[in-house]
Amino acid sequence: MRTAVDVNCDMSEGFGSWTFGDDIDSRIMPLVSSINVACGFHAGDPTTITRTLARAVELGVGVGVHPGFRDLVGFGRRHIDSSAAELVADAVYQLGAVRELAVLHGVELQHFKLHGALYMHAARDDEFATALVEALRVVAPSLPVLVMAGTAIHRACLDVGQPVVREFYADRHYGADGHIVFTRDVGALDAEAVAAKVIQACQDGTVETVDGQTIPIEFDSICIHSDTHGAYELMSSARAALDEAGITVRSFATHS
Amino acid sequence: MRTAVDVNCDMSEGFGSWTFGDDIDSRIMPLVSSINVACGFHAGDPTTITRTLARAVELGVGVGVHPGFRDLVGFGRRHIDSSAAELVADAVYQLGAVRELAVLHGVELQHFKLHGALYMHAARDDEFATALVEALRVVAPSLPVLVMAGTAIHRACLDVGQPVVREFYADRHYGADGHIVFTRDVGALDAEAVAAKVIQACQDGTVETVDGQTIPIEFDSICIHSDTHGAYELMSSARAALDEAGITVRSFATHS
Amino acid sequence: MRTAVDVNCDMSEGFGSWTFGDDIDSRIMPLVSSINVACGFHAGDPTTITRTLARAVELGVGVGVHPGFRDLVGFGRRHIDSSAAELVADAVYQLGAVRELAVLHGVELQHFKLHGALYMHAARDDEFATALVEALRVVAPSLPVLVMAGTAIHRACLDVGQPVVREFYADRHYGADGHIVFTRDVGALDAEAVAAKVIQACQDGTVETVDGQTIPIEFDSICIHSDTHGAYELMSSARAALDEAGITVRSFATHS
Amino acid sequence: MRTAVDVNCDMSEGFGSWTFGDDIDSRIMPLVSSINVACGFHAGDPTTITRTLARAVELGVGVGVHPGFRDLVGFGRRHIDSSAAELVADAVYQLGAVRELAVLHGVELQHFKLHGALYMHAARDDEFATALVEALRVVAPSLPVLVMAGTAIHRACLDVGQPVVREFYADRHYGADGHIVFTRDVGALDAEAVAAKVIQACQDGTVETVDGQTIPIEFDSICIHSDTHGAYELMSSARAALDEAGITVRSFATHS
Repeated sequence: MRTAVDVNCDMSEGFGSWTFGDDIDSRIMPLVSSINVACGFHAGDPTTITRTLARAVELGVGVGVHPGFRDLVGFGRRHIDSSAAELVADAVYQLGAVRELAVLHGVELQHFKLHGALYMHAARDDEFATALVEALRVVAPSLPVLVMAGTAIHRACLDVGQPVVREFYADRHYGADGHIVFTRDVGALDAEAVAAKVIQACQDGTVETVDGQTIPIEFDSICIHSDTHGAYELMSSARAALDEAGITVRSFATHS
Repeated sequence: MRTAVDVNCDMSEGFGSWTFGDDIDSRIMPLVSSINVACGFHAGDPTTITRTLARAVELGVGVGVHPGFRDLVGFGRRHIDSSAAELVADAVYQLGAVRELAVLHGVELQHFKLHGALYMHAARDDEFATALVEALRVVAPSLPVLVMAGTAIHRACLDVGQPVVREFYADRHYGADGHIVFTRDVGALDAEAVAAKVIQACQDGTVETVDGQTIPIEFDSICIHSDTHGAYELMSSARAALDEAGITVRSFATHS
Repeated sequence: MRTAVDVNCDMSEGFGSWTFGDDIDSRIMPLVSSINVACGFHAGDPTTITRTLARAVELGVGVGVHPGFRDLVGFGRRHIDSSAAELVADAVYQLGAVRELAVLHGVELQHFKLHGALYMHAARDDEFATALVEALRVVAPSLPVLVMAGTAIHRACLDVGQPVVREFYADRHYGADGHIVFTRDVGALDAEAVAAKVIQACQDGTVETVDGQTIPIEFDSICIHSDTHGAYELMSSARAALDEAGITVRSFATHS
Repeated sequence: MRTAVDVNCDMSEGFGSWTFGDDIDSRIMPLVSSINVACGFHAGDPTTITRTLARAVELGVGVGVHPGFRDLVGFGRRHIDSSAAELVADAVYQLGAVRELAVLHGVELQHFKLHGALYMHAARDDEFATALVEALRVVAPSLPVLVMAGTAIHRACLDVGQPVVREFYADRHYGADGHIVFTRDVGALDAEAVAAKVIQACQDGTVETVDGQTIPIEFDSICIHSDTHGAYELMSSARAALDEAGITVRSFATHS
């Protein structure tokens, strides 16, 4: 039974004057232990990233980079047919861009997590997953990669010894295979149900599937997406339940 | 009297399918000792940058980052009214992006040079120059900055001990103050005249001004812009003249 | 003494998932008689524009195009040094793009208004103002241009007979010359004071200047910027005051 | 047996300083009767479009709009998963933008042709094809759509009476079903073979398939892609062969 758990959420998701991400940053960042910083391709210009990093320093949360497809208008949610080589170059570019800003602000990167459709692509496409992890072995061999257990990128990391952090998706439905049901349309979620799901996962190590089974689930971090409808309410509710259950919210990097 | 000199030129100036920069890369890179790699804001997507880096490794030229304004359509030549803080964040983002790709390809960055209108802005604007150099002190304290002697960014580097490399612009006209005459419209340049100018600068340490004087000029690197009309011919002619004069073209980083 | 007045506001200022503009659209559009639709260069992708147009049809407000600089990250507020020819091409492109979407949704364009830094540029730069109006004479000779009285673009329209609509800026301070004081930093405005200013302008035809004078002001439309801090409160307050004073809010195009 | 045929080619495919499209414009435009003008999403900024339109007026070629995916770095060749509604809004936006610039320069649009991956999408996806043609019925009911015979968009046009122009692809291989073999990698084509293929298609109404059959082919316009390797040589060779065979190259719009 867990006494501590990491909670991660996407941040820095504004762009220029658009403050989508900043509202999230202000309200949700204090509730989590790790953040995923948009890197400029789907959201997050350098000034927005800078603001997010400064806030992360204040709050002491772990900072990860969150590369996505080059798709501002689609927020990185649309798959773009691209070669593995091109996507690896895009991801490394984004990693370096945010890492340099992090260095400027005295932050050491804690993790790497792909965003949106690129996360899904790495979950399914062995060629891209393998090529990406090969590049990470060179530029960031000790940087943990946030993954869904059992996916292509998870296997690619395990194959070569790249550290991984397995995620539990509190705001997504699970199938009998232990994978989330890939859909953006999760409907309006009930905050209490999400909180109960989080507690069950932490205390019992299980999750209910869409077809009514209870299956075991292993994870190192809980993810609630900042762009899920009512994200703040879901996160608040989950956080309150964790606090009440005596489960400390702290970064996986500080687990001992 | 010099026996060796650095010659630098902008590279990686294509974007996606547009191969402006690639032609330059193929034809001019073998003639120079240092290249300035566009970082994605005015030119140079990650795949193009990757190709340029691979070519640089083959040829053994010194690789610098070349941040510019966020202005693909204007190629970074148009000034955009922006705060110093915003431009510093943009420059650090670009530096990190290319540095990470360089790490991936086994290249250590040799220098930092701003592009186009951002180069001009740093030459004139003390607030931006000072803020930028302050950031470089943190993220790249030993990375030389290519500057025009006597400009705001030159002074800012000298003030805090950031290394500098002073440029001589073989394809620009000089005024009596030793500064180049700021104009893009330098007309069609005569390749032999450019070569003679380069040799005079190297051997006599002087340059002719637009008003007919001969003035002393100090520099550590010769720049011929890749987007000057007839750039390849100018570069070939200058390189042949240097070879004939027994002046080795090699990176300033290897000068002993 | 007026019995009716047009009130205009910027709309469609989101981009993709960023809903800045949509919130404004939902809350402010019912309060105004004319809207300025962002055209994609500083905000407003085709899908966002489409939503705004559909809402405009429902509410029966007059629809104008609102071209700006190509500057998503800067929201069109930053001046970009560009030739007049380039900016005219950009503006005509944006006009046509939104006009075609308007045709698709059964909307006839009511007016043309430049955005942000491009509005300021046309107010000050005779070359751009003249070239732009010359193009409008060809593509939209009967489309009124919203202007600040006495500016370059106002004169350029008068010179060639392009219709104009003069604006009164309820959320900007006026100087003794009858021009607004160019600053984005208008501070937090008092909603009652703005309402009083609107009523005074409508009933007395005067405005207080920053140096304490009361000067006459002529105008055909009242503008409250959607990106002014507290825009909704300012607009609500102004609208309530107009209603109470018996001044109908209706488009200038329907004035008889 | 034909005495005249339309030949179309993509133009205006540069962006800002990148002159890919301009070289094509200069060298190939004099050889064709119809051009497809990139609209800014995958190539073609307003200034580049303006130059292309001016050249088209000089040469008297028919001008079509050529909308693509929003994908500068991928040149519109990469499929982006998007809703039909979003893509229709994008296409109408692009149509209007170029139409307005055409009006400014005294050009009436002759046709509509999708670009790259969006062309392929409309060939295969009934939902998008139908939604697009429905929009064209409103904004451009008499504008012919260039299509590959037998595709989704061809059927969608026929269903509602939108005019169509069927293309013959001189630089693509045909399968036994009369469709081109979808691949970008057509290898280096032999200019004489392409010329012979064009003449056979015009005189005999047949084409050889990749599996060695000779099948009938119906078409109203011949397309040679400007981004096929050696496009200028292919086009020159085809044009010379047409001239020699006494087949006039003229726009389908002028066929009587």
